[in-house]
Amino acid sequence: MGTARVIFDRWDGRYAASMSEVRSSAVRDLFAAASRPDVISLSGGMPDVRRVPHDLVQRAVKQALEHDGATALQYGSSEGRLALRRIIVGLMSESGARATEDDVVVTAGAQQGLDLLAKVFLDPGDVIICEGPTYVGALQAFSAYRPRVECVEMDEHGMRMDALEETLKRIGPRGAKFIYTIPNFQNPAGVTLSADRRRRLIELAREYDIPVIEDDPYGRLRYEGGHILPLRALDPDVIYLGTFSKIFAPGLRLGWIAAPRPIRARVLLAKQAADLCGSAFAQAVAERYMTGTAWRRVLADLTRTYHTRRDAMLAALTEHFPADVTWTHPEGGFFVWVTLPAHLDTKPLLAEAVERGVTFVPGSDFYPAGRGSNNFRIAFCYEEPEQIAEGVRRIAEVLEDKLALYRAFVDAGAMPALAVSGGSST
Amino acid sequence: MGTARVIFDRWDGRYAASMSEVRSSAVRDLFAAASRPDVISLSGGMPDVRRVPHDLVQRAVKQALEHDGATALQYGSSEGRLALRRIIVGLMSESGARATEDDVVVTAGAQQGLDLLAKVFLDPGDVIICEGPTYVGALQAFSAYRPRVECVEMDEHGMRMDALEETLKRIGPRGAKFIYTIPNFQNPAGVTLSADRRRRLIELAREYDIPVIEDDPYGRLRYEGGHILPLRALDPDVIYLGTFSKIFAPGLRLGWIAAPRPIRARVLLAKQAADLCGSAFAQAVAERYMTGTAWRRVLADLTRTYHTRRDAMLAALTEHFPADVTWTHPEGGFFVWVTLPAHLDTKPLLAEAVERGVTFVPGSDFYPAGRGSNNFRIAFCYEEPEQIAEGVRRIAEVLEDKLALYRAFVDAGAMPALAVSGGSST
Repeated sequence: MGTARVIFDRWDGRYAASMSEVRSSAVRDLFAAASRPDVISLSGGMPDVRRVPHDLVQRAVKQALEHDGATALQYGSSEGRLALRRIIVGLMSESGARATEDDVVVTAGAQQGLDLLAKVFLDPGDVIICEGPTYVGALQAFSAYRPRVECVEMDEHGMRMDALEETLKRIGPRGAKFIYTIPNFQNPAGVTLSADRRRRLIELAREYDIPVIEDDPYGRLRYEGGHILPLRALDPDVIYLGTFSKIFAPGLRLGWIAAPRPIRARVLLAKQAADLCGSAFAQAVAERYMTGTAWRRVLADLTRTYHTRRDAMLAALTEHFPADVTWTHPEGGFFVWVTLPAHLDTKPLLAEAVERGVTFVPGSDFYPAGRGSNNFRIAFCYEEPEQIAEGVRRIAEVLEDKLALYRAFVDAGAMPALAVSGGSST
Repeated sequence: MGTARVIFDRWDGRYAASMSEVRSSAVRDLFAAASRPDVISLSGGMPDVRRVPHDLVQRAVKQALEHDGATALQYGSSEGRLALRRIIVGLMSESGARATEDDVVVTAGAQQGLDLLAKVFLDPGDVIICEGPTYVGALQAFSAYRPRVECVEMDEHGMRMDALEETLKRIGPRGAKFIYTIPNFQNPAGVTLSADRRRRLIELAREYDIPVIEDDPYGRLRYEGGHILPLRALDPDVIYLGTFSKIFAPGLRLGWIAAPRPIRARVLLAKQAADLCGSAFAQAVAERYMTGTAWRRVLADLTRTYHTRRDAMLAALTEHFPADVTWTHPEGGFFVWVTLPAHLDTKPLLAEAVERGVTFVPGSDFYPAGRGSNNFRIAFCYEEPEQIAEGVRRIAEVLEDKLALYRAFVDAGAMPALAVSGGSST
């Protein structure tokens, strides 16, 4: 008995087949680089919690311990604390989405909601429908259950309903386990599903009898245009995912699922198996934080801050980016999606960008495989406007080098003409 | 668009096949009944967090926000905060288990560790080896991945090595994905694996090339006898699960896995997919709480408290329980395992017990299926000695009624003679 066996590295049959398809995400891998103080991070979707006053959190903890100490430190119910579920119902109703406390399960961020729903719905080989590109964390959560992912194209109004219908016709009624969508300020594309398309999506989902999962982390972070009712407001059968990460703090790891009862019952079982129950402590603190109006002032300040940063990013893109590059115009949220001429691969550019002290996320991270290589995502949520402008300028430098080379090839007739896919430029 | 479809209840193919095998646990289902103030709870394994001074927690939060506020409220790394992993390594080394920070992944309680390991190792139909009976939460976590569970019998010295060897011979080398064991004060049996058997278990696991998962939530809660080295101290290949639930508070939902690097790498991927990262807030608070010596005084007080309660329970069992009932003698932890004459079923007795204002957990919860019906688990961790004595007395009343009927049957030659399975009485 001494040193560890190396055999764990070798025997393939030792591990589950399912895990072979779970990839690490470049976003997570970049965590170390993005944390360096000299690097401008345009990669992660990190809310700017530096603007959340610590005394408000401190006070929430004090109240939670004083009033709910015994329960806050104890195991809790698997569905989550009733008081927090009531607050969640209130938040949803402000956006027009209907739910009762009994529809809600509190989760460890919306990410756990994705994992639990995948566990509840997916057997290997099952088809699911997502936007293409889509949230990398969703792809990661789903991939452990080995589905076949159908990506539906988007334009500046979100998921294209003609493309969705085409997919549904091909796979037939009940041909997919669910349709997963991020209607507001989509991650990574930054586009928003129009009201008309929301109605059409519900119609199609009903016609083909396929549940809809609506992931809405950014809904409250709108910087222009009017509020659009969530899918859940149009159909109580929609499974709704929410999170406190963007309206309070990600460090609490609190999100929720609101789902029809039979689905919710299965989610609860999966939640028990996954971690028994969520953190009663974090829930009790969130309850106190979300009571009163102080949190609304913090969120209003955050929204103004993000708005300014988005404007800074869009201005910098216009100023610095070459003419043969396009990008989306987000009305809210955190992200801009950039499209380079086809045949250009953004992945090798990342190392060069990091060398110049800036990070982005290569587009291929946001597809199951083989697409998005000429795209990348940049986030305006975390850095100050000057940093954002400087970061965009540095990326532009990297791009300019590649594009110059590329244009020379095209001029020489060595490559096909420029093709722009997805997104709309401003 | 209006009322919810009932169809979600009907279509079986809508859900994953795997979820059909996940059962709700009686422990969790009892949560509501056990929370009633008039009911004496001998069911749940809830640490007595009422003895954790709130001002210590409050101070830990204050320090965490002051020193680590920006990171504590933010997303964190998937492996968990380095400072907390250092504390974990220190805790493990105090018990004789070796690990470095790079072996450790912080999890949402040890329960998430079980789920992640199941995800990493299990394909449907894979064999795993557990103690019989074993932790209900482990069975629940594993069942979502549909393994075939081999239960190895225990006696007063823990898992029987002759029975384990027999099982291993039958299934052959690499015939199981892992051996799962709770060596200290086992949940639910309350027995402890002897030092000799620990060495033998490691030998057998190496001979048959099967990883060992050591779940050690109660190791620090010993009330008599000397410390026995954990399996991880005998073999660095052992996968070790720890938790802060019993040395700090379950409401934080903090546990950990220490595993050989190749396994740890896969666990990290599974963790990312499950919830991106643990709560940085809870981790920062635990870091501060576990620094200094105050937590040791709290834990010493808790240990004395549990010791007194264990003694109260054992005394009450001797006083009140009928002669044809046996039970185990736990040297630590939370639980006593009770064995009734065979052919008696404890499940129907639970409702009667709840009616009399006391709860226990029927034994069948702790087996995959078809065993343990003449057993139940009682916990001495949460109630005061007087309550424990009264709770045991109430259960004895319920038992006495049944046993009187049972003895009349046996006397009439209508049923087989008493058979006592598992455990040792005091």
